[in-house]
Amino acid sequence: MDTKKLQKMLEQFAAERDWDQFHSPKNLAMALCVECSELLEEFQWLSEDQASKIMATTDQAERIRDELADITAYLLQLANKLDVDLENALLSKIDKNAAKYPVDKFKGSSKKYNR
Amino acid sequence: MDTKKLQKMLEQFAAERDWDQFHSPKNLAMALCVECSELLEEFQWLSEDQASKIMATTDQAERIRDELADITAYLLQLANKLDVDLENALLSKIDKNAAKYPVDKFKGSSKKYNR
Amino acid sequence: MDTKKLQKMLEQFAAERDWDQFHSPKNLAMALCVECSELLEEFQWLSEDQASKIMATTDQAERIRDELADITAYLLQLANKLDVDLENALLSKIDKNAAKYPVDKFKGSSKKYNR
Amino acid sequence: MDTKKLQKMLEQFAAERDWDQFHSPKNLAMALCVECSELLEEFQWLSEDQASKIMATTDQAERIRDELADITAYLLQLANKLDVDLENALLSKIDKNAAKYPVDKFKGSSKKYNR
Repeated sequence: MDTKKLQKMLEQFAAERDWDQFHSPKNLAMALCVECSELLEEFQWLSEDQASKIMATTDQAERIRDELADITAYLLQLANKLDVDLENALLSKIDKNAAKYPVDKFKGSSKKYNR
Repeated sequence: MDTKKLQKMLEQFAAERDWDQFHSPKNLAMALCVECSELLEEFQWLSEDQASKIMATTDQAERIRDELADITAYLLQLANKLDVDLENALLSKIDKNAAKYPVDKFKGSSKKYNR
Repeated sequence: MDTKKLQKMLEQFAAERDWDQFHSPKNLAMALCVECSELLEEFQWLSEDQASKIMATTDQAERIRDELADITAYLLQLANKLDVDLENALLSKIDKNAAKYPVDKFKGSSKKYNR
Repeated sequence: MDTKKLQKMLEQFAAERDWDQFHSPKNLAMALCVECSELLEEFQWLSEDQASKIMATTDQAERIRDELADITAYLLQLANKLDVDLENALLSKIDKNAAKYPVDKFKGSSKKYNR
């Protein structure tokens, strides 16, 4: 993913509409949350089985793609605002998690991230 | 961002811990929501002014980077599961939004996405 | 608030539509999250000043009331399912919080709940 | 539930700690969202079967009660700030929903609230 290019596009999109005034880090974090819940809404009444087949129905699949795109958009915009390189942040978090969740202790445990 | 490589790493991380059984699309969508709220939590009691300086404090900055990394991790894992190319999805969503929010009608309007 | 009466009404509403099959605790917790984000959406692009006057506009006020009602509905349904008395739970949580956040240590501190 | 009494208690709790400055409607809506996600976190890796038995384990049950209490606390505080009577709001929303989701059209349909 060319994050730099996408961030430029999103920046320009907002600038053209004079929306930058709304895009404070706090508001973007809220918007990210709102978009994630819209994605969640697609799953909320589905059984695990129905949820696993969600991409098989054209209109559902399109809504899912759109919601994932919205989440990506706000995530990129927020990272841009806060000057965070998401790839580096993720690589460093994977290292932390490897130390926090050693394979022998957390294998098959649903407790994993929680406690 | 090398999404393919990161998705492979995350897949392997989960496989080593036998966590794939928990990573259904429905559960990943929930986890994504939970991580976004953890990010939101960092902002919830801050004034707009404090929020805009959140990266100036070392420990806050690290927590923000970690939360953004967690969100990225679940977003990549969910996209991987659902076989969605996030870059393509975003480019196509930007096109849709350009049609939905013409510059002349939405310039400077906070109503934007909402109604 | 007559929670028992409202819970009965919500139970009957769901039963008449055969929706009880969807109302597992897990799904209700998701729905609660989705509704809270819909409320959040009303605030996301508003300045603090605009947000504080949100009830002064008739249509906004009605949406806010409806979202608060939706949150209340899912909260009552989930509490009912899990057999939790919300008033008792809250009274006991206020006691815990009083011990956790002594006045002299947390007065005026926005760190409060967080760390 | 004696909402008035609880709202007074919460008001006093915040006043004693000088936290009212943080409790703007926008911030309270964020906090409500954060608490709902903490509840969601308890469910995120559980199967439907495990989730339905979540109150059978003492420590899980206590965490659930605490999270439901936190949600109730922020919901009551926000309603208080916005001068919304939650019981009236819910009764009026149930009426709207009865009109929007006639029994004969929505019986057994998981589409229900969504589209």
